[in-house]
Amino acid sequence: MSAHQVLIAGQWKSANSLASFHAENPATGEKLAEEFPISKWADCDAALSAAVDAAALLRKIPAEMISRFLRTYADRIEANASKLVEAAHLETALPKSPRLAEVELPRTTTQLRQAADAAFEGSWSQPTIDSKQNIRSYLAPIGPVCILGPNNFPFAFNGISGGDFAAAIAAGNPAIVKAHPSHPQTTRLLAEEVVIALKESGLPPATVQLLYHMSNEDGLKLVSDPRTGAIAFTGSRRGGLALKAAADVAGKPIYLEMSSVNPTVILPGALAERFEKIADEFAGSCLMGSGQFCTNPGFVILLAGQSTDGFIAAIKQRFEKAPSAPLLGPGVHKSLITGIQLLQQAGAKLVTGGSAVSAPGYRFQNTLLRVDGAQFLREPKRLQSEAFGNASLFVVAHDIAEAKLIVDRLEGNLTGCVYSSTDGSDDPLYDQIAPSLRIRVGRMLNDKMPTGVALSPAMNHGGPYPSTGHAGFTAVGIPASMRRFGMLYCFDGVRAERLPPLLRDKNPNGRCWRMIDGRWTQQDVGMV
Amino acid sequence: MSAHQVLIAGQWKSANSLASFHAENPATGEKLAEEFPISKWADCDAALSAAVDAAALLRKIPAEMISRFLRTYADRIEANASKLVEAAHLETALPKSPRLAEVELPRTTTQLRQAADAAFEGSWSQPTIDSKQNIRSYLAPIGPVCILGPNNFPFAFNGISGGDFAAAIAAGNPAIVKAHPSHPQTTRLLAEEVVIALKESGLPPATVQLLYHMSNEDGLKLVSDPRTGAIAFTGSRRGGLALKAAADVAGKPIYLEMSSVNPTVILPGALAERFEKIADEFAGSCLMGSGQFCTNPGFVILLAGQSTDGFIAAIKQRFEKAPSAPLLGPGVHKSLITGIQLLQQAGAKLVTGGSAVSAPGYRFQNTLLRVDGAQFLREPKRLQSEAFGNASLFVVAHDIAEAKLIVDRLEGNLTGCVYSSTDGSDDPLYDQIAPSLRIRVGRMLNDKMPTGVALSPAMNHGGPYPSTGHAGFTAVGIPASMRRFGMLYCFDGVRAERLPPLLRDKNPNGRCWRMIDGRWTQQDVGMV
Repeated sequence: MSAHQVLIAGQWKSANSLASFHAENPATGEKLAEEFPISKWADCDAALSAAVDAAALLRKIPAEMISRFLRTYADRIEANASKLVEAAHLETALPKSPRLAEVELPRTTTQLRQAADAAFEGSWSQPTIDSKQNIRSYLAPIGPVCILGPNNFPFAFNGISGGDFAAAIAAGNPAIVKAHPSHPQTTRLLAEEVVIALKESGLPPATVQLLYHMSNEDGLKLVSDPRTGAIAFTGSRRGGLALKAAADVAGKPIYLEMSSVNPTVILPGALAERFEKIADEFAGSCLMGSGQFCTNPGFVILLAGQSTDGFIAAIKQRFEKAPSAPLLGPGVHKSLITGIQLLQQAGAKLVTGGSAVSAPGYRFQNTLLRVDGAQFLREPKRLQSEAFGNASLFVVAHDIAEAKLIVDRLEGNLTGCVYSSTDGSDDPLYDQIAPSLRIRVGRMLNDKMPTGVALSPAMNHGGPYPSTGHAGFTAVGIPASMRRFGMLYCFDGVRAERLPPLLRDKNPNGRCWRMIDGRWTQQDVGMV
Repeated sequence: MSAHQVLIAGQWKSANSLASFHAENPATGEKLAEEFPISKWADCDAALSAAVDAAALLRKIPAEMISRFLRTYADRIEANASKLVEAAHLETALPKSPRLAEVELPRTTTQLRQAADAAFEGSWSQPTIDSKQNIRSYLAPIGPVCILGPNNFPFAFNGISGGDFAAAIAAGNPAIVKAHPSHPQTTRLLAEEVVIALKESGLPPATVQLLYHMSNEDGLKLVSDPRTGAIAFTGSRRGGLALKAAADVAGKPIYLEMSSVNPTVILPGALAERFEKIADEFAGSCLMGSGQFCTNPGFVILLAGQSTDGFIAAIKQRFEKAPSAPLLGPGVHKSLITGIQLLQQAGAKLVTGGSAVSAPGYRFQNTLLRVDGAQFLREPKRLQSEAFGNASLFVVAHDIAEAKLIVDRLEGNLTGCVYSSTDGSDDPLYDQIAPSLRIRVGRMLNDKMPTGVALSPAMNHGGPYPSTGHAGFTAVGIPASMRRFGMLYCFDGVRAERLPPLLRDKNPNGRCWRMIDGRWTQQDVGMV
C-alpha cells in the first residue's frame, strides 16, 4: 500500500516525501495499516503559495460563502459520523460512546456552525466608525493561518475541524493544516469532507491545505515564512516554544495553547459540606479521557487536617477502583512516566499508582501524588511540571498563609479553581487566595472542575504565559477566538464606494454590531 | 550641579547611577545645563518592585480614581503649559507656536481626558456575559507596563504623558517610564505634575516610575523581567527589534511602533486635476516638523510622464524654498545622512538637497530623491529603508503594472495612501493598486497625506510587521489602544458577590457597553 496523498490547492497529490509513517492503535500498540507521508519542504512551499492565492480570492468573496462552507462541512461531518468515529477510536482509543460520538463530534459541528453564523454576521470584526471624521476600521483577514493541532481531541481541536480551524476560516483566512501524526486517518477523512464542502459552497479550492507530517526544521520554516499570516498551535510546551521562537523572529503572530496544571484549591469548609460530591467531581474530572485534557486538574491545594487526609484517602480509593484507560499513544505514555518521575524526584510521594500497566497498548495506573507545602516552596518549578494524563498532585499546605505562598509561585495557567463552603465560613480564606490566583490564570472557577470548556462567547481558553503565548486571547469561544486571525484595517477618508461592505453607512446584513460614534448598534450610520 | 533624581514609588531619589548625561539644544548643538543619571539595574529593580505593589492596589480601587488622576494630570499640564513648552522647545528645537503650544500640548491633554472617560466608562474592557451558563469575561489590567517613548513628540508620545501612557494607566496598570534621553527635562517636569496628580487623586504613589536612561543591557533585562506585564516602545527598528527579542523569549507582550516609509501613490488623473493642491499638501506634510513623523510620506509612487516630471520639479522648487529646520538631535542627523547615502548607493538620484547644513545645530537640506521602478525592483529592500527626517524618495514606475509590482514588494507600513481623480478616470488604476497596498498597511488613506493621526476610536496607528510587532493593535485611538494592556479574565460559575463590578448583573455606571448574550447593551443583565 502506498502513502496517502496530501491536499494542496484543492488537489490530492502525491507528497514530496522524506519518508512515511503509520499511526498506532493505542489500545493494542499495533501499527495501523494506513501509510502517510512526511512531507519535504517542497510541499510546504506549494501549500503556502496556494494559500496566498486563496487569501486574495477570499478577501473579495461575500461572507455568506464562507458561512455556507462551514455549515456544509458541519453537515457532512454529521453525515459521516460513524466512519469518523470509527477512525478516531482506532487512532486514539478514546471511547466511541459517549465521548467521540455524543460529546466531541457534536461539539465540533456546533462550533463550526457558530463560526458560520459569526462569519456571516461580521460582529467579530468590531467595525468602528467615526462618521464625523470619516475614519473607519475593523479586523480583516490576516492571511494564511498555519494550524498545528494536538493529539487529544481528534475532532474538536483537530487542525482541520477544531476551534482554531473554525476561527481562522470564519475570519476569512485560508488554512495550512498539519495533521497530528497520531490520528492522520481521522484527519484525512475530515479533509475529504472539506474538499466536497469547498466545492459545494464555491470557495477557492486552496482555502484548505493538508499535510500529515514534516521535519521539525520544516515546521519552523513554515511558521516563519513571509507568506504566513499567523499560526495556531496546541500541544506541548517544548514544541510550542520552538515554534514561537521561529515565528517571533519573523514577526508572525503565533497563538499557542501549551501546558497547564490547572491549580484547584479545595477549602476546608467545602470539604466539610460536600465531601462526597467533591470527591466524585474531582475523580471524574481527573480521570475523564485518561486525564488527557489541557484543563485537567493536575495540581490540588488543600489545607492540612483530618478532612484533607480523609479526602486524599477517598480519592485514592476512587483512583484504584477506576480502570486505567488507554493513553493516546507512546508519546503521552512516555511523557507521563517521565513527568511522574520528575515530581517524585522533587519530593512528591506516591499515594497510589505510579506504574505502567502491562500490555496491550499504552496504559498507566491512575496516579495520585502528595507533597507538603514546605517542600513545594523549596521546589516550585519542578513540582508544577505537567504530568499529562491520569495523574494529579496534591499539595498540602499547613495553613492558608502557606497556601497563598504556593499560589504566589504558580506559573501562568489556563484555569484556576476554588471550592468553598456555601455558608460563608471559607470566605476569609477565599479572599486571601483569590487575588493571587486570579492574575495567574485565564479562567477562574468556583465550585466546579475546569475540564468543561463551554462553547460560549464569554469563554477564555487561554491564560498567562507559559500556558499560552499571549494572555489577551482565547482559543475557544466564537467570536472572540476569531480576533486572533484579524489584522486591523483602518480607512481614513476613503471614498464610500471603495469601503468594504461592513464599513459603509448601510449595515449590509442588519445584524452586524458596529461601534458608530461611540455607541454599539446594528443600525445604519446616521440612524443612531 | 548634581544629577536629577529618579522617581520610584512616589519618591524622588538619587539614582544608582552608572554615569550621567546632558541633553543638547538641537538648534545650537550646545549641551544643556541639566544633568541626568544613567541608572544601574538597582533602579530598574526597585522600579519593578514598586510597580508590582502598585498593580495589586490598582486592581482594587474604583475606576473613578484612575479617571480622576488622568483628568487632574491633564489640568496640571495645561496650568504649566508655558514652562513645559519652553523646556520642550529647548530640548527638541520644535517651534513653540503653533507646534508645541497649540498643537501637541492640547493633543496630549485631549488624549489624557479621553483616557479618563474610557477608564471610568469601562467599555474598553469589552465585558462579555453569558447569563445562561454564568460565564463572564473582560479585559483586566495586565500588570506593570514599561514605556519607552520616542524623540519626536516630547508631549504627545512621551512615555510619561503620551498615548501609551494614557492607555496603560487608563487600563489600570502602573507604568515604568524610560524618558527619551533627548528630552529628559521636559519629561522630568511632566513627572512633577504626575506626582501631584497622583496625590490629589489618591492613587498609589508607585503608579508611575521614571528613569531617565539605562544601559541597553538593563533595558533588555527590564522588558524580560518576570514582574513586567507588557511593554510599549516607539522608536527605531533596531532598538525595537532588540527589545522584542528579549520580551518574546520571556513571553511578554511587546507593542512596538517602529519605522515606516508610508507609501503614497499619486495617480495621473489626480495630478491633472489638482496639481498645485497636491504639491502643496505633499511638501507641507513631508517637511512639517522637519519630516520627523512616523507617518511622514517618505516613499511616493508616480507613473512616468510629463505631469510626473512637472510634479517632481514643483516639489523640488518647494523643498528649495522652504527653510531647513533643526532636526531633533545628533542621532537623527546622523541617521538621516546614512539613510540618504543608502538610498543613493541603491541607485536613487538626488533631485535636490542631500547635504548637511552648516552649524548652528543639527540641520539637513530638504531632500528629494528619485529612482525608476525598474531599479526599485532590483533593490527593493535597500530602496525602502527609512530616511527619518525631511527627505522623500519618488519612485517613478513606467506603468501601472510596474507600480503594482512595486507595491507588491513593500514591507509592512503604518499607512498607505492613494490620490486619484474625482472624475473616476483613475479608478481602474486604483483598483489595480489598492488590494495589494491594503494588506501592507495599517491605515489606508484617499486624497490626504498620512501625517495627521486623528485621536479617533476608529484610528489605527499600527500596521503589519515590521512597522509594528503585531498588526492587530493600534497605538493611537482610545479605547482600542487600551486593549493592548489587558489580559482576558474569565469567571466561570463564580459567585455573584465575587465578580468585579463590570461583570455583575447590574451595570455599575449605566454607561459601560457590555456584550450580554450576544447583544451589545448598556442595560443590566436580564433587561435585554
